[in-house]
Amino acid sequence: MSHKKISIDGTGMYLPKAVSSDSIETKYGIPKGWSKRYSGVKSRHHVTDETNGLMGARAAEDALKSATVGLADIDMLISASGSFDYPIPNQASMIKHHLTDGNSYDFPAIDIDVTCLSFVAAMDMASRILDGITYSRILIVSSEIASKGLDSSNFETTTLFGDGAAAVVLSFNPDGNSTFIKGQFKNHSEGAFYSIIEGGGNVNHISEKPYNEGLYSFKMEGKKLLRQAKTIIPTFVDGFFSDIPFSLDEVDVIIPHQASRAGLEMFKRMHPTSASKIIDTLAETGNCIAASIPISLHMAIQEGKLNKGDTCLLIGTGAGLSIGALLLEY
Amino acid sequence: MSHKKISIDGTGMYLPKAVSSDSIETKYGIPKGWSKRYSGVKSRHHVTDETNGLMGARAAEDALKSATVGLADIDMLISASGSFDYPIPNQASMIKHHLTDGNSYDFPAIDIDVTCLSFVAAMDMASRILDGITYSRILIVSSEIASKGLDSSNFETTTLFGDGAAAVVLSFNPDGNSTFIKGQFKNHSEGAFYSIIEGGGNVNHISEKPYNEGLYSFKMEGKKLLRQAKTIIPTFVDGFFSDIPFSLDEVDVIIPHQASRAGLEMFKRMHPTSASKIIDTLAETGNCIAASIPISLHMAIQEGKLNKGDTCLLIGTGAGLSIGALLLEY
Repeated sequence: MSHKKISIDGTGMYLPKAVSSDSIETKYGIPKGWSKRYSGVKSRHHVTDETNGLMGARAAEDALKSATVGLADIDMLISASGSFDYPIPNQASMIKHHLTDGNSYDFPAIDIDVTCLSFVAAMDMASRILDGITYSRILIVSSEIASKGLDSSNFETTTLFGDGAAAVVLSFNPDGNSTFIKGQFKNHSEGAFYSIIEGGGNVNHISEKPYNEGLYSFKMEGKKLLRQAKTIIPTFVDGFFSDIPFSLDEVDVIIPHQASRAGLEMFKRMHPTSASKIIDTLAETGNCIAASIPISLHMAIQEGKLNKGDTCLLIGTGAGLSIGALLLEY
Repeated sequence: MSHKKISIDGTGMYLPKAVSSDSIETKYGIPKGWSKRYSGVKSRHHVTDETNGLMGARAAEDALKSATVGLADIDMLISASGSFDYPIPNQASMIKHHLTDGNSYDFPAIDIDVTCLSFVAAMDMASRILDGITYSRILIVSSEIASKGLDSSNFETTTLFGDGAAAVVLSFNPDGNSTFIKGQFKNHSEGAFYSIIEGGGNVNHISEKPYNEGLYSFKMEGKKLLRQAKTIIPTFVDGFFSDIPFSLDEVDVIIPHQASRAGLEMFKRMHPTSASKIIDTLAETGNCIAASIPISLHMAIQEGKLNKGDTCLLIGTGAGLSIGALLLEY
């Protein structure tokens, strides 16, 4: 699919109420300044009465507006997220239901979940199926609520994660200049248990395992994850650029998953000459699971950091452990 | 993508312990014979200590064996299911982790969720991305545990649903005779709340809504669903066959989602001349969410009902409400 003519026609975002690190530290008895120092997060957003569906719909409408298209122009909605409103039905149906007039349209509504990498995987999948025949325009939405699944006794996760949603309108545009150059994904399932919410699925079903905050909250084995990432990321990046006429140094804008301060710093140390091209939204929005990359993409476009003609690499890791990247010319 | 050269190289299945309707009726005080009469289910399977991941891995290994390929030949694993082991990570990572030697391979592991339609949507998506370059062979697994999310006071769901897993190996095979003719999906989100598990996501989060069986079990508004299906299915089927040189009457084998006895009977009444071509596994396995269609596909092949050269229609509805179909020449 090298250099397929795919363009990002519009992006959108919805962020709920901002919550300062100061207020979180006060609320949970975390030492003052801990969040900024260790998680790298000054502020993030937490839902009040918003749902994943509602935030996703508002972000989608923002993206449609920026693309100057309407729902009648959309051939598929993909929800690309790791969190959800209900175990059943799928989240894309809920986002569609929350779209103004969403129920009047019958385009398919499909979920793609690769946890934090869901958005990048959905972009890659969409770019492969866009053919100008069955699918000419696809709406991808990542809407995440992390704040409800955090263990308040775990300073790291409580300060790191945030809620939010972002969306893009992607189109097959043979006459345009924008291209998707390469997408690649891998999974290293020896790390399947390193990032996990143990309770709430079928293994620890709520009917058998009564609620306790630890079991039903997100846990990560930070040291094991960083160790695995240290070996996997350089190999992946080398492999990614091995068969295309590009090097990482030539990429104009790098949008990594905002996994953690340690993760972002490790990536910068691994690629020192590219450090200045990295979009870093961690301090203002935290780790928003799969929504972090599209939020950063949206902000980079809004702030003029990513411009038409620029090459852009979306890259990240996700629980599982998955790793993936997509190189495009915006 | 009409007539793309895609072949099903192998199928596999894993069913946990069979549970008779008699034993369920005794256990929950349901009148004798109720299940067979109203749900149409004589027997289904329930997990004892199996997980979604384990069942999925065993079904996948069965499919690999029948395709005479190994994990080294697989370019992507798709988990196509509505239920899961853990809210995080994604289910495909867990299935990969449970595969013998799964952790030794780094092919991507991606979830596609369109609830009961997940398998058909994954088959369609896989067929579109299979290109003989990046993706030559894709393993699709549907592994479902419905039995833990049932309200025992609801006779209909308690008797209808079963657990099980099935898998297929799909390949791009330009020299073969097998083709994927057409795939199409639609979503009618006015029905988003007709089939639902209300508790366990972010809307009714376990930290805020204590466990009770009703809130955390699958509910369906049977009458509303049947009413919606009655208008949607004929329109969808007419539309599906409107632009291809096939009619439903010409299809050799029809594999519908085993939604319910009422749903299957309605489909048969709508298409009386095709009734004898419909694969019906409901009585023996119940409704296994997304695994019902691949279980039926596997059984149809095993029992000689679907043979090479036959045309086969996979068709179903799913919570959301989604509807979709895939026509292939096996």
